[in-house]
Amino acid sequence: MEKILIANRGEIAIRIIRACKILNIPSVAVYSTADKTAMHVAMADESVCIGGPNPEDSYLNQESLISAAQITQADAIHPGYGFLSENADFAKLCEDSNIKFIGPSSKVISIMGEKAAARETMIKAGVPVIPGSDSDFLSFEDAKHAAEEIGYPVMLKASAGGGGKGMRVITSPDDFENQFNLAQSEAQSAFGDGHMYVEKYLAHPRHIEVQIAADKFNNAVAIGERDCSLQRRHQKVIEEAPAYALDEETREQMYDVSVQAAKDIHYEGLGTMEFLFDGPGKFYFMEMNTRVQVEHPITELTTDVDLVDLQIKIAQDEPLPFAEVTRKNFALECRVNAKTAGKIDALHLPAGHGIRVDSALYQGYSVPANYDSMIAKIISYGPDRATVITQMSEAINETVIAGIATNLDFLSQVLQEPEYLTNNTDIGWLDKLTKSN
Amino acid sequence: MEKILIANRGEIAIRIIRACKILNIPSVAVYSTADKTAMHVAMADESVCIGGPNPEDSYLNQESLISAAQITQADAIHPGYGFLSENADFAKLCEDSNIKFIGPSSKVISIMGEKAAARETMIKAGVPVIPGSDSDFLSFEDAKHAAEEIGYPVMLKASAGGGGKGMRVITSPDDFENQFNLAQSEAQSAFGDGHMYVEKYLAHPRHIEVQIAADKFNNAVAIGERDCSLQRRHQKVIEEAPAYALDEETREQMYDVSVQAAKDIHYEGLGTMEFLFDGPGKFYFMEMNTRVQVEHPITELTTDVDLVDLQIKIAQDEPLPFAEVTRKNFALECRVNAKTAGKIDALHLPAGHGIRVDSALYQGYSVPANYDSMIAKIISYGPDRATVITQMSEAINETVIAGIATNLDFLSQVLQEPEYLTNNTDIGWLDKLTKSN
Repeated sequence: MEKILIANRGEIAIRIIRACKILNIPSVAVYSTADKTAMHVAMADESVCIGGPNPEDSYLNQESLISAAQITQADAIHPGYGFLSENADFAKLCEDSNIKFIGPSSKVISIMGEKAAARETMIKAGVPVIPGSDSDFLSFEDAKHAAEEIGYPVMLKASAGGGGKGMRVITSPDDFENQFNLAQSEAQSAFGDGHMYVEKYLAHPRHIEVQIAADKFNNAVAIGERDCSLQRRHQKVIEEAPAYALDEETREQMYDVSVQAAKDIHYEGLGTMEFLFDGPGKFYFMEMNTRVQVEHPITELTTDVDLVDLQIKIAQDEPLPFAEVTRKNFALECRVNAKTAGKIDALHLPAGHGIRVDSALYQGYSVPANYDSMIAKIISYGPDRATVITQMSEAINETVIAGIATNLDFLSQVLQEPEYLTNNTDIGWLDKLTKSN
Repeated sequence: MEKILIANRGEIAIRIIRACKILNIPSVAVYSTADKTAMHVAMADESVCIGGPNPEDSYLNQESLISAAQITQADAIHPGYGFLSENADFAKLCEDSNIKFIGPSSKVISIMGEKAAARETMIKAGVPVIPGSDSDFLSFEDAKHAAEEIGYPVMLKASAGGGGKGMRVITSPDDFENQFNLAQSEAQSAFGDGHMYVEKYLAHPRHIEVQIAADKFNNAVAIGERDCSLQRRHQKVIEEAPAYALDEETREQMYDVSVQAAKDIHYEGLGTMEFLFDGPGKFYFMEMNTRVQVEHPITELTTDVDLVDLQIKIAQDEPLPFAEVTRKNFALECRVNAKTAGKIDALHLPAGHGIRVDSALYQGYSVPANYDSMIAKIISYGPDRATVITQMSEAINETVIAGIATNLDFLSQVLQEPEYLTNNTDIGWLDKLTKSN
């Protein structure tokens, strides 16, 4: 690659620019008019304004991005995460414009972007998915039969609905008929449709994901896993590597099926297989993310693999430099979010032993209101979970971001919760915690 | 230990306070009146003013420090580096006051602090020292005889003198008489004394040091080595780990003699054995530093050992938790020095993948004129020397320290020198470079 355009902003744009510098590849930053003074613009070798503050006009504006690449003679585009990173049309447009999209092919992105197609592909590759009925039912006998095949507890869902209406957790066959009738009448009155669907119910699953990398020679490797169960309204807040809740046997199974799936679909690039983990041996595919993950630093710090460097090298048709990865230590990431836009009057980010910070902040920077609220990632790494959590708490205590409201206090509180400290959490835990407070 | 008083300031005080927090040991900061607004004061659990800006009145004021420990009921003192860290009298005063001095015994510090006693101790322990004549000479025949035993090239030195007067490098016996006579008459006229001393001459040695740790059970271990050849007027500027110039066999020999010496003297704590390295198999003891080293982070990042944590645990009579250490990756430290005192108007320190910064700086902080000029350490780590140097260059480019003059530009220049990039340097190289510029 002669020159890489980074179709993103914020800390991930900076992460990619730094990787380009180490690879001695010139970089092009793009920016909206709201991002004129953003750090990624100052750091890249060149920069191009691609439109107005509204993402549709700039970071999601495919034609603008392609033009910017053509004008600056960039022969590759790194999409980062979010924005167009999982947009198959954009990947296709790059392919058609003879610009290397740093990620898998548009075809693979397209399959993984559609829930049903992704699920079907994974089933074919031998990846476990959440057991569910193949069709939907109107009669309780048929539904009960499906439930018995799946195994209790099951979740009864309205086929036509959502938002909790017509949903019931059923723990045993004894109560099935009664619960079915209640749920169905709820569905009928809410959606005008009494078709019901049955699926395996997971009471306290964790979100555990496997980082994989695969090259064009059909080599694939698992580069550790992450536990991202701490989510607030489906947004990850705190991520950990490795997943302390995971037993070694299940870990190996997860790695094996992830690598096999990557090979089956001739995957190229970095990817993340997201699973629900429900105890030893029980894990179910949710989705595959076909780009670099926000939380990639915790994997870097526990495997010594530079994931962005690797991603670019794979896009340059280099083979994977290793067949397996040694995992060590423990790492924890906290996402620092801005709750308000505005100027940062005083800034002091944590640093020192065991601390990494990825951010695009600087003193005097004005956080625009137009984009994702995440403004910094604080990563703590060290020998074990307890040490790393204490170190993270101290790092957050040292942090000063004045002039805007942030979630720093919230992060501090979570890190002190007894259930967090004992790792007794699941994907619903953080939402429950914030509701009860 | 119930509470640790940190008898230091700046980045090392902060490094130690953070380690205390992770160990859940309360910390006491001390400060001079010039350091009221210093970051270490804000970070410790308690703080005590110990005197005026002049180091003799505060950080070197032994009675003040002991009083501060007694007032705050601190039962241990961490001396950091510099100041009283290698002062045997202070260590003795701590011992006599029933305060644990975090470091070796005053007796060991005393021996290692005297050049002749240290040299003698090392010879006994089987550590190579620079070969030199056992006595001094007035006649060229006696001196020549000694030179032949030592082996050419040798350095002829005036016993009474210094400053280069009466010094000659002699490369072969042919020219000995003539050179001896010239040197002796120079010595005679400069110092009124014609006694001459002969020692092995090292043309282009490197400074390579071995990090050791030893516990009270007489276990000792080598925790990697560092190449600190880049010095300006005997002050280290850039340090690297591991030492790429070192062959594996000599490395093992250095480790073995260092560990053996530590055991022979019943060393307890962290220590550094400094050697001159003159090619495979040829290395000579210079001195032992009996405290944590400024450049300890590069060892931490290439061994995954937390040296300050280990140091405190050894002082708590814990045994070493490992018998050997796995070394990996490469790390590089640049010392950022202030060339002027004054207020820091704008500050942006580098961060992100592969970068660690240890500093006591914050926006608006006034660097006092009274202390060591080092204000920050930038550490870059990664898979190999070339990557880590490029990453360091970018980190320095990203750094903004406005309001005072620093050596950042100088560091940038050094990192671009072809001889530095090819590792073709020695302990004289940086002084030569700065003279020729």
